[in-house]
Amino acid sequence: MKGVAILGSTGSIGTTALRVLARHADRFRVVALTAHGNADLLAIQEAATQAPFIGLVANGSAHSVPERWRRGSECLTEAATLADADIILNAVVGAAGLDPTLAALNAGKRVALANKETLVVAGELVRQAAVSGGGEIVPVDSEHSAILQCIGSRSGAGVRRLVLTASGGPFRDWSRERIEQATRDDALRHPTWSMGRKITVDSATLVNKALEVIEAHHLFGVPYDQIDIVVHPQSIVHSFVEFVDGSVLAQVGLPSMELPVLYALAHPERINESSAAPFDPVAASPLTFESVRLDDFPALRLGLAAARRGEAAPAVFNAANEAAVALFLDARIRFVEIAAAIESALDVLGDLPGTEKNALLVADRAARQHVNERYGC
Amino acid sequence: MKGVAILGSTGSIGTTALRVLARHADRFRVVALTAHGNADLLAIQEAATQAPFIGLVANGSAHSVPERWRRGSECLTEAATLADADIILNAVVGAAGLDPTLAALNAGKRVALANKETLVVAGELVRQAAVSGGGEIVPVDSEHSAILQCIGSRSGAGVRRLVLTASGGPFRDWSRERIEQATRDDALRHPTWSMGRKITVDSATLVNKALEVIEAHHLFGVPYDQIDIVVHPQSIVHSFVEFVDGSVLAQVGLPSMELPVLYALAHPERINESSAAPFDPVAASPLTFESVRLDDFPALRLGLAAARRGEAAPAVFNAANEAAVALFLDARIRFVEIAAAIESALDVLGDLPGTEKNALLVADRAARQHVNERYGC
Repeated sequence: MKGVAILGSTGSIGTTALRVLARHADRFRVVALTAHGNADLLAIQEAATQAPFIGLVANGSAHSVPERWRRGSECLTEAATLADADIILNAVVGAAGLDPTLAALNAGKRVALANKETLVVAGELVRQAAVSGGGEIVPVDSEHSAILQCIGSRSGAGVRRLVLTASGGPFRDWSRERIEQATRDDALRHPTWSMGRKITVDSATLVNKALEVIEAHHLFGVPYDQIDIVVHPQSIVHSFVEFVDGSVLAQVGLPSMELPVLYALAHPERINESSAAPFDPVAASPLTFESVRLDDFPALRLGLAAARRGEAAPAVFNAANEAAVALFLDARIRFVEIAAAIESALDVLGDLPGTEKNALLVADRAARQHVNERYGC
Repeated sequence: MKGVAILGSTGSIGTTALRVLARHADRFRVVALTAHGNADLLAIQEAATQAPFIGLVANGSAHSVPERWRRGSECLTEAATLADADIILNAVVGAAGLDPTLAALNAGKRVALANKETLVVAGELVRQAAVSGGGEIVPVDSEHSAILQCIGSRSGAGVRRLVLTASGGPFRDWSRERIEQATRDDALRHPTWSMGRKITVDSATLVNKALEVIEAHHLFGVPYDQIDIVVHPQSIVHSFVEFVDGSVLAQVGLPSMELPVLYALAHPERINESSAAPFDPVAASPLTFESVRLDDFPALRLGLAAARRGEAAPAVFNAANEAAVALFLDARIRFVEIAAAIESALDVLGDLPGTEKNALLVADRAARQHVNERYGC
């Protein structure tokens, strides 16, 4: 029986995980739940799981909350290091996921990582924490779960190339001119995946794919020039791995986060999931693949360049994107201004140092401030 | 440095294997070559590889052959048990491949098996020989190589279902009426794979897929009701494996036998093959999948029924098919009579016992005789 702490339990991944865990209560016990601000749902989840540790990050919640709940952002790290938590499912949104990831790895725990910003902002630090603390990172992202399943282990040995698939988002077949007129509702209408709002916008800009390339680089130790992207509108093939002998494996299936969550908990085992509908290739046919339109999705291009630039550039890219997406969701900037804001931040701050955590946090804050000052008024 | 004996070196798989081995002479040494009757090519291969053991099965060769060559069908078993042969690549055509497979497994060797009839005729005996002799079977068929690569080991543990892909052959989209008029040239025009004549006809009748289902059953210990077939005209996805958690892996790539041959030699390692062109999903797009037309390909239906019937039925199916294909290639029966001949043999002989090798050989001979007597005049 493994103890599981869920950071971000009221979000899309968190609620999916609780569904999965409820079906496998013979193997996993929920020992902690944390949420940002949705106290009502958190209370329902507490009653359903009987989790002994409950944390609410936001202090200004309108409702009164139980005395026994932990409050404030420290609850994340506290939950991530509980003695009876064997696996930390980190489904926190944004750079706030970094500290609990580092703490859990330093405590020798498995981190099932849905918070890709952790690796984007501080991939090197996270890898070091895993080595020194004896913890391990198992990805929850569907693409990285696919890669892990194809390789069979977290070692990138024998791998020649990774090919991440991208749905292409809602603007895949839109002209550049039409994308320039895209509204918030357009951006939130993802063709194949039902997800949170921030990641849905990241899928429209293709920023999400840049974050995933960086994540894959750190997870599997594969150099950037051996990581490709291909657009696959059906989201059935979740990624390809090409090995040194030229063989290519792929993981396929209907888009659902339940499998990546379950696999991250069970890896390298596979747990019987009788509710999973069998894959029907005929129903999934045809599977199509297209080149990615880098010129029409400048935010992706910027992200890939920031990845190669290294140091604090990926953190600046990520923070500028988070700030810009928040402004976009708040209807304060247009869709195309997200890329413009990222480019502006990278122009000014892209060469900041980034080998220490504090330097990365400085870069992160500077990028948010830059975007908010220049675009938020 | 591993010693490799190639049985059937002048055929399609044999020549492919020699190309692969020539590129990896640092790891493998060719210690034996055998051919059925192509003495000229065998002599060329002897000169190129310097293999110390050369065997020619057919005694009635027109040419004079070197004294040092072994002659007659015994040379197969002799080559399969040579002390310096670590791996036996069995690419013999038809049921003649059984004895050398059993001998090699009993001698504790790896059999890289391209001769699927071995497992179809005597799957249980072959499995027993591998256990008692300490040998192992690694498949060379592209579909089974794909499955092995997806599973990562020869154990079927964690597997819920296998889905073998089938190109559908040259008659995939022909009407039943048109198939009834199919000529030998039509049947030999395979859309995606360049192979020997017998297997090309088997791909037109879809008998090949029935043989592969039986082969998969014995190789991976998966029950017949957990093995499906899907038609995939592009032959890019070489098969799917569905695991107990609902996840599906696939092995994909351009149709080439070089990879399955190399993988069978190297498994579970992967050997660097710099000549392999990178897989381009965009160029391969679209990938389509169709249900198999069991009613219009009766030989496949007969093979699947024979598989479930067990005992000698698969051997009768295979032998009747071999005899019928020979008559068809000899222009003595029409395409649709292949299935009729198989059905007739199974009607008469399908309940023969089949737990002992001699009983299986009796069934094999009886089926050939039945087809030749009824259809060969």
